[in-house]
Amino acid sequence: MSKFTLAIVAGASAAAGAATTAALYGLGGRRRQETQTIATTPSTEPSRTTPPPPVPIRRDDPTVPAIPPVDPSGVFQYGFPGPVADLRAAPSLTSSFDRARRNPHWVAEHITPASLLMQNGDRRHSYFAEDLSIPEKFRAKLADYQRSGFDRGHQVPAADAKWSQEAMDSTFALSNMCPQVGDGFNRDYWAHFEDFCRRLTSHYPSVRVVTGPLYLPNKDLDGKWKVSYEVIGHPPNVAVPTHFYKVIFAEDGKNGGNVSLGAFVLPNDRIANDKPLQDFEVPIEAVERASGLEFAGLLPPARRKRLCKEIACSVIVKQYEERQRSIRSPPPAKRT
Amino acid sequence: MSKFTLAIVAGASAAAGAATTAALYGLGGRRRQETQTIATTPSTEPSRTTPPPPVPIRRDDPTVPAIPPVDPSGVFQYGFPGPVADLRAAPSLTSSFDRARRNPHWVAEHITPASLLMQNGDRRHSYFAEDLSIPEKFRAKLADYQRSGFDRGHQVPAADAKWSQEAMDSTFALSNMCPQVGDGFNRDYWAHFEDFCRRLTSHYPSVRVVTGPLYLPNKDLDGKWKVSYEVIGHPPNVAVPTHFYKVIFAEDGKNGGNVSLGAFVLPNDRIANDKPLQDFEVPIEAVERASGLEFAGLLPPARRKRLCKEIACSVIVKQYEERQRSIRSPPPAKRT
Repeated sequence: MSKFTLAIVAGASAAAGAATTAALYGLGGRRRQETQTIATTPSTEPSRTTPPPPVPIRRDDPTVPAIPPVDPSGVFQYGFPGPVADLRAAPSLTSSFDRARRNPHWVAEHITPASLLMQNGDRRHSYFAEDLSIPEKFRAKLADYQRSGFDRGHQVPAADAKWSQEAMDSTFALSNMCPQVGDGFNRDYWAHFEDFCRRLTSHYPSVRVVTGPLYLPNKDLDGKWKVSYEVIGHPPNVAVPTHFYKVIFAEDGKNGGNVSLGAFVLPNDRIANDKPLQDFEVPIEAVERASGLEFAGLLPPARRKRLCKEIACSVIVKQYEERQRSIRSPPPAKRT
Repeated sequence: MSKFTLAIVAGASAAAGAATTAALYGLGGRRRQETQTIATTPSTEPSRTTPPPPVPIRRDDPTVPAIPPVDPSGVFQYGFPGPVADLRAAPSLTSSFDRARRNPHWVAEHITPASLLMQNGDRRHSYFAEDLSIPEKFRAKLADYQRSGFDRGHQVPAADAKWSQEAMDSTFALSNMCPQVGDGFNRDYWAHFEDFCRRLTSHYPSVRVVTGPLYLPNKDLDGKWKVSYEVIGHPPNVAVPTHFYKVIFAEDGKNGGNVSLGAFVLPNDRIANDKPLQDFEVPIEAVERASGLEFAGLLPPARRKRLCKEIACSVIVKQYEERQRSIRSPPPAKRT
């Protein structure tokens, strides 16, 4: 069983005084499972080890009704239960919304050297807004965040969408927000990480970033793994993620060209500015297992590069005022 | 703000010695929200109360590029992230799977007096099986349940699918299972509840049941609401739900006829046999808010009846051996 247990610990010592050690779902055991064509255990004899062959469908058995007596999918006459992806295609982002936790599943953006040079949008003219395209009962509300102690944390940052006011405005919908720890995270390390993504455009002509929340288990005092997260709002309905991920696709600009991939998972907690960004790098499949999403299934292995092997994955610490003055940061160092 | 807070407490005193008090998401405030056409707060002045009018799209503004410089949806060239519903249409059930928590979202079934009379399937010939239609990395495994302390709890019960061996076999896929507390729940109160659903066919010619897991918040010692649940498996990856719901559609058999609705939420914990079933009845919308799903959006209010007003919603306690002998229980009492 230990072969199956490969826990990737992300951000173990990232936060001062907070137990944020979390396991991403491991990568072990896949090959072993894929060689099985069927995996069964008997329902009444748990110790039996040899599984029986699959039961063939006995079409010639007179006891099997030719027409099934029931129609389980008939319930769809009352509506399809879901899940509904709530896809939103806005100028600055494309996203999918998690109706149960009232956070996005993921938000995708695209930045280029040209898009970041355009400065037509100003965040002082943008307003946080509820996403009215999501049914009221599943929508995050402005009131849910009030006095919660958490920031309305952009998943696609406003600073990536300055190319038009409309593009910037579209980042202020609550479907692009998650509750984020403010001091030490959203306003600090996470902002430096967002800056790192922008700086990638110095080396890559086209950069795609998919960002979203995670709800990861911790090992409890009793030895059991438990997912535990706060829920804010009135009534409590907006989940506070334990972690956030970014999956970065740095493209070389050629049709069918190389894509440098980087996946990062950060705890939703204070992170010291001197913590190396690379400590948060994880295999992309770890994010997939933890989120239930898939990010690069159609990207052939031959086109994949590892981002942090090509450039130095590290943040530059800038204070808030400095960031607002749009001082261009130097590009990340190239590895030789 | 207190107007928005209407917490429905389900199963408050259901379990002996366990703190299972949980709030379903409330039903308040909807009308108020729906009269708003837009709801915004400024990004820089949190105290401002009058929202500005929506910003019009300035197509004639020369600073707005006619062609956007970016293409956020272009990331789909590498695959659509999801969520993917993993719909499964089997003889006995239709279901959707939650890839992040490796439990079903919901499992729908259909039972009739005729389908329950047919006795062609025998659970001794059925075997628990992994659902190979779900990608390996998102699938619940037989090994995940081993020594977890939890039952592989059928969502659509095997006893509802005796009409053919194939139908019964199809209830044994792990995509129809959730980790359930065995003694006092899966093998007791929950089984009595399943029996109640079957007994409904004495009064209704067609009964549909949608069953699934919930992950509900508790009020913590610090006054904050928190969702907390165990995750089992190797590595930990299969969530143990805090609660289970059933939404029951008891149809009168007429085309466009009446549908008697009942929604129930039970804690995944020991429940005393003398606990009235009706204590677990909740408004259907409470299940929807908690699950992010919708169950009866297309059912006009004029066709809706309340199940527990028509018949007595109560369980009959039968021991396991008695249940296996298929002794027919008396139908629920009709209310006059």
